[in-house]
Amino acid sequence: MDRRSFLRNSALGGTAAAASTLAAPAIAQSARTLTFVTTWGRGLAGVHDSAQYCADSINALSDGTLNVDLRAAGELVGAFEVFDAVSAGQADMYHGVDYYFLGQHPALSFFSQIPFGMTFMEFNNWYYHQGGMELAEELYPIFGLKAFPAGNTGPQSGGWFANEINGPEDFQGLKFRMPGLGGQVLGKLGASVQNLPGAEVYQALASGAIDGTEWIGPWADESAGFQEITNIYYTAGFHEPGPNLNLVVNRDVWDDLTPAQQSAIEQTARASNIWTMTLFMANNSSALQRLQAGGVQVREFPDSVWDAFGQAAEEVIQESMDDPIYAQCYDSYMESLRSSASWISRSQGTFSEQRNRVLGI
Amino acid sequence: MDRRSFLRNSALGGTAAAASTLAAPAIAQSARTLTFVTTWGRGLAGVHDSAQYCADSINALSDGTLNVDLRAAGELVGAFEVFDAVSAGQADMYHGVDYYFLGQHPALSFFSQIPFGMTFMEFNNWYYHQGGMELAEELYPIFGLKAFPAGNTGPQSGGWFANEINGPEDFQGLKFRMPGLGGQVLGKLGASVQNLPGAEVYQALASGAIDGTEWIGPWADESAGFQEITNIYYTAGFHEPGPNLNLVVNRDVWDDLTPAQQSAIEQTARASNIWTMTLFMANNSSALQRLQAGGVQVREFPDSVWDAFGQAAEEVIQESMDDPIYAQCYDSYMESLRSSASWISRSQGTFSEQRNRVLGI
Repeated sequence: MDRRSFLRNSALGGTAAAASTLAAPAIAQSARTLTFVTTWGRGLAGVHDSAQYCADSINALSDGTLNVDLRAAGELVGAFEVFDAVSAGQADMYHGVDYYFLGQHPALSFFSQIPFGMTFMEFNNWYYHQGGMELAEELYPIFGLKAFPAGNTGPQSGGWFANEINGPEDFQGLKFRMPGLGGQVLGKLGASVQNLPGAEVYQALASGAIDGTEWIGPWADESAGFQEITNIYYTAGFHEPGPNLNLVVNRDVWDDLTPAQQSAIEQTARASNIWTMTLFMANNSSALQRLQAGGVQVREFPDSVWDAFGQAAEEVIQESMDDPIYAQCYDSYMESLRSSASWISRSQGTFSEQRNRVLGI
Repeated sequence: MDRRSFLRNSALGGTAAAASTLAAPAIAQSARTLTFVTTWGRGLAGVHDSAQYCADSINALSDGTLNVDLRAAGELVGAFEVFDAVSAGQADMYHGVDYYFLGQHPALSFFSQIPFGMTFMEFNNWYYHQGGMELAEELYPIFGLKAFPAGNTGPQSGGWFANEINGPEDFQGLKFRMPGLGGQVLGKLGASVQNLPGAEVYQALASGAIDGTEWIGPWADESAGFQEITNIYYTAGFHEPGPNLNLVVNRDVWDDLTPAQQSAIEQTARASNIWTMTLFMANNSSALQRLQAGGVQVREFPDSVWDAFGQAAEEVIQESMDDPIYAQCYDSYMESLRSSASWISRSQGTFSEQRNRVLGI
């Protein structure tokens, strides 16, 4: 709560208070407006769609009592400012991925993504049923926030490179865009890592400010146009097997909503979660075919690179273990991961392998 | 629409009309009651929980305008009567798995499960984004119904057997419980197949009326108590890699709801979809450990059995192809399956294999 008090007295907090006072009469007379900022540039494939889904669904469910006002990155605050803006009350809620805010708290990794971590199903298994939600309720209130998983991109691609990666030494000196702990892992391998919001990546790649980048997967990457600049594409990556996109609400705003309005946000987030995940899946396969038809060469990292990713990831993940909430999240997350991964491998893994063999997929 | 008219004039339809007239004044004065029947016995692990989630969420979202009255199988109508009951308007909606109703239309397989078919993610990818929803809107209106995917059990186990299955010939003469097209596949292998609702399976197994059974997975199976009777358990099966549980609403009732009430049902179903799927996942791993500790022997079918399953499944699936809606569903479903399975294998498959190797899972 200290941090939150600090923000409330900052310039950002001051702006928020003014905006809130101005809006009050309109709220009382009709629909309550909820200002909804995002870490996504307007129209960014999949991720902006997910935020739009949330806005539309909350509006529809609220039966006219809420008016969600969606502001893409840069329209009210910048992509990397949404966490502070909602914490301070300058905006009411945000849609984004919380590894952008590791400077606020390292445990936000577990509610977005840690390298070699959980896939979509494994994360939601942990969040809804094996302790994740309860841990989020220890972490987010520190910042005056309440979080709801509200989407996922599915496994992110290893990324775009000018040259093949044949061993871990090929990352030495490479200027690469990758956010979160994944970026720190590449740093351990000697890469010069940059953390850029999605809307700025194309220009950085085109100008040579970076040698390569990861973004999301074939569909979003094709839409961003990276194939115009580089043409070696690694489809599997270690860094984001299932990044969770959060819908995060200012806690005072949340407490002031009616139970039905709170349900509208909570159930919308869950609905968006599966809708968004499958939106990416539905578009990735055909996008990859188009990319390959256009000359993009698809590669997989060799085992030696995966081993180096794994060792560096372990180092990076251990570095924040002196934070008690982080350590608590780590223990809970890894116990759940080992359990769910084992069951998935035995059930869905065995089935999919046999089905794909029998059907020739 | 013919079939629906028929049902409306049946004895079932008559009852429904009377109930509807009686309820009308109460609806006008306060919350509208929606009678919600299920194919699940009260308390059946996971599946009844999913129906309860839907009831609770719709009530909360409706802000007091709806009162969902959940009646488990046998409390108003039997498990296998819910389709006709809601079609006729005797009940307002149901939660269930639609392969119980293949006698009504063979294409209901695609909206529940076909053998060697889609997993949870693949199904929802098809349903939300690759044509499944549009095809459901061709099929369900024939019966005066509107359907929403609202849960999934995840990959179902191959089942409980008194003796090991070493080749396809071991199914000859076996009395086995398996519903839907999966059961027809075992019939091709010479099994004597029964279709029993969940609440009746234990007694049939205990009495020797059946030699073996599948139900859901370790958690629900342990809860049903099958390990008290048999102790050979196959964890991966061909028949239900991701059976979809539908929330199905009478179409006249649907049309009479407000847009906000319709949204409450639609978004609740999607929320329940991921919540239910992960509920099963969260409980299966520990349940399997308990079963093994209690002496259950876990097995996997050999390739020769999977091949025989595959060949018989192909025969069964082709048998309904003269129905135009079925054929249309088949083409759409298989195109989507091949596309999504290929992408999942390349992205999540490669990642999970490398992660599990590096982490020693």
